[in-house]
Amino acid sequence: MSVVLVLNAGSSSIKFAAFDRATTPRVLKLIGRGHVKQSGAEVEMLVRNADGAVLERSHCGLANGAFDHDKGMAHMFTWLDEHRGGLELGAVGHRVVHGGQWYSAPVLVTDEVLDDLETLVPLAPLHQPHNIKAIRFLREYIPTLPQVACFDTAFHTTQPEVAQAYALPRDITEGGVRRYGFHGLSYEYIASQLPRVLGDRAHGKVVVAHLGSGASLCGMIAGRSVASTMGFSALDGLVMGTRCGTLDPGVVLYLMQSLNLTPAEVSNLLYNRSGLLGVSGISNDMQVLLASTDPRAVQAVDLFVHRIVCEIGSLAAAMGGLDALVFTAGIGEHAAIIRSRVARGCEWLGATIDEESNTMRRELIHAPSSRIQLVVMATDEEKMIATHTSRRACRAPEGPVAHARSTPAITATAAVRP
Amino acid sequence: MSVVLVLNAGSSSIKFAAFDRATTPRVLKLIGRGHVKQSGAEVEMLVRNADGAVLERSHCGLANGAFDHDKGMAHMFTWLDEHRGGLELGAVGHRVVHGGQWYSAPVLVTDEVLDDLETLVPLAPLHQPHNIKAIRFLREYIPTLPQVACFDTAFHTTQPEVAQAYALPRDITEGGVRRYGFHGLSYEYIASQLPRVLGDRAHGKVVVAHLGSGASLCGMIAGRSVASTMGFSALDGLVMGTRCGTLDPGVVLYLMQSLNLTPAEVSNLLYNRSGLLGVSGISNDMQVLLASTDPRAVQAVDLFVHRIVCEIGSLAAAMGGLDALVFTAGIGEHAAIIRSRVARGCEWLGATIDEESNTMRRELIHAPSSRIQLVVMATDEEKMIATHTSRRACRAPEGPVAHARSTPAITATAAVRP
Repeated sequence: MSVVLVLNAGSSSIKFAAFDRATTPRVLKLIGRGHVKQSGAEVEMLVRNADGAVLERSHCGLANGAFDHDKGMAHMFTWLDEHRGGLELGAVGHRVVHGGQWYSAPVLVTDEVLDDLETLVPLAPLHQPHNIKAIRFLREYIPTLPQVACFDTAFHTTQPEVAQAYALPRDITEGGVRRYGFHGLSYEYIASQLPRVLGDRAHGKVVVAHLGSGASLCGMIAGRSVASTMGFSALDGLVMGTRCGTLDPGVVLYLMQSLNLTPAEVSNLLYNRSGLLGVSGISNDMQVLLASTDPRAVQAVDLFVHRIVCEIGSLAAAMGGLDALVFTAGIGEHAAIIRSRVARGCEWLGATIDEESNTMRRELIHAPSSRIQLVVMATDEEKMIATHTSRRACRAPEGPVAHARSTPAITATAAVRP
Repeated sequence: MSVVLVLNAGSSSIKFAAFDRATTPRVLKLIGRGHVKQSGAEVEMLVRNADGAVLERSHCGLANGAFDHDKGMAHMFTWLDEHRGGLELGAVGHRVVHGGQWYSAPVLVTDEVLDDLETLVPLAPLHQPHNIKAIRFLREYIPTLPQVACFDTAFHTTQPEVAQAYALPRDITEGGVRRYGFHGLSYEYIASQLPRVLGDRAHGKVVVAHLGSGASLCGMIAGRSVASTMGFSALDGLVMGTRCGTLDPGVVLYLMQSLNLTPAEVSNLLYNRSGLLGVSGISNDMQVLLASTDPRAVQAVDLFVHRIVCEIGSLAAAMGGLDALVFTAGIGEHAAIIRSRVARGCEWLGATIDEESNTMRRELIHAPSSRIQLVVMATDEEKMIATHTSRRACRAPEGPVAHARSTPAITATAAVRP
């Protein structure tokens, strides 16, 4: 049997999920999920099986202080190796935030690919270095293990030029300053599920609302991205938990030229102190704000909804219409009142929500009379990464995958071909 | 007889227009328009009568070098005084770019008002100082002359809170960082003309596209602004002649943190080197780009149109529908192909253009079957300022207007009441 491991390495956490790909390569079965992350002064590892039962909760025993990726990864792999039973690790897939202008699909990691990913660090300085670090660790730890980089930007490379361009001088644009869009692995997963849910309408004009602590919208025609609200960075577009979303560039200049903030201070302000948290002054957590009667909480939620409704209008314009609206991710799946308010904001487009279906969180939540189908779906970026990894590590278009060698920690194998 | 003079003082020009308000205060008749502006190494004054015939073209005789507001104003007032015939100057109205959160209507200038306007300089550092300079000059030059400040932001103060807010921490927002919107005097003029053109539809949901070298959209319900594409500064929203329009704040950070530009360099880049000029690398002039077959020119025009179409979708969402779309300002009035392309981008909203009416530049350019009325109108910010000035300078809510004294240059008079 063989396993595809999915890694999502962030600044102070590593999330992982393991999928069994033994039976057939097209059906990946979740074995378990977990994370290693900073929790107070400790670094904690948590592992759950596919049913959500806790298999392991342990401290990584790191010296109190900063989270350390390499130590966290070693702790995780040691545990996985000890508990792998007869399973062998076949390949690892990484969520990599930025694939730049080159990578429109997942890629088997080579030295050349790693060099490319390094050059993209300035485009995503808060995320890309952690993704690369995890890849480099594993290349040393299990040198023969096939690793696949799956990009959050890749899904959006199908967008027309006008959707990707800023009105900046060409030398700046050609240097890579364009709209990339993110949450691509989530959108790709949703797109793969749409035919099952929508039938022929999946080939129509769909807006997917990925509403989590990061939030964005993607306009798709026939399952391909034609526009998105996130642009060059993960700051743009909708109001998020702590990120500002759309902001006049003149504000950034004002913060520096008149309020004398440094670029690093502005960056911290816009990434970590704005959004729902900044407006409410209370919390970045939508559930907390929805439970509050504080007018500042109400204001934050109002702004969140207003911006979604306006951006749906903008995406519908980019597509020339709207056939369906899909809600996903934390807020999208679990905040019925947000779905209801967004849908009411889209009544002018022909959307009519069925409030009972919405409250019951059915998959289809529109009224029979609605011209627009309203859908709630769970997203699964990890499954998407595992699927890509399974395919890529087998196909090995860059040459034959080297056979794996045993390591003290876990057995890697190239015997992953169907 | 008495005259209302309108002044629009920019960084290297002063535009002016004179209106006769003698017959009845509600009907202002244009006497003439002109400008004093840098033209090569010289500063030129040009004056035309109401029919456009040139009355005067002269050099201001300033030492070659930088444009000087005070000398330009003195030159202009000397000429006006010499050629005023029996006319007396009753009041001056200024276009002032920024009225901040306080000024939702034109105001008679007092010391207190001037102090307020000074505090708003950081919100519009490229424009506000010139507006203030012109007011200060006249307070010294003709101390008793009533001066009225008319704000480009005032028309938008009717917008709901969600349309004015950024998702920033409250201390930043309360310090004045919000969406103000501009081109308000143009929108107000158009709103005043809509009932004549649209009848009852003027009370509906209208997007006005002010497309000049500066460009923005305003969504109005019943003639009141509910949303606009320009925000805190005049950078935001649509692609403009040399301004970038909407831009991910992450790009501004990137330009400084990775490309090592200073805030002043970024400001210059985004205000003066971006937009149509930046994308095309050819010109900021739409007519030049439309006449070009260079693919970069085509790209710039495509992006210009795309952004307008998307933002119309966003404004329609903010209003919950769209009944009419009005084109105005240089490009809006004179580039039939841009109107045609924008209208086609709005077909999904029910817009159908009548190409013959469009080419003929009729006032109504939609087909009989169109669900949305398409309109072309000339805007007249100066007339709007003159109208406000006439009303305010007469009403003098801040106390009686002091009687004017003669000056060597021109006779100011408070005998401006109807």
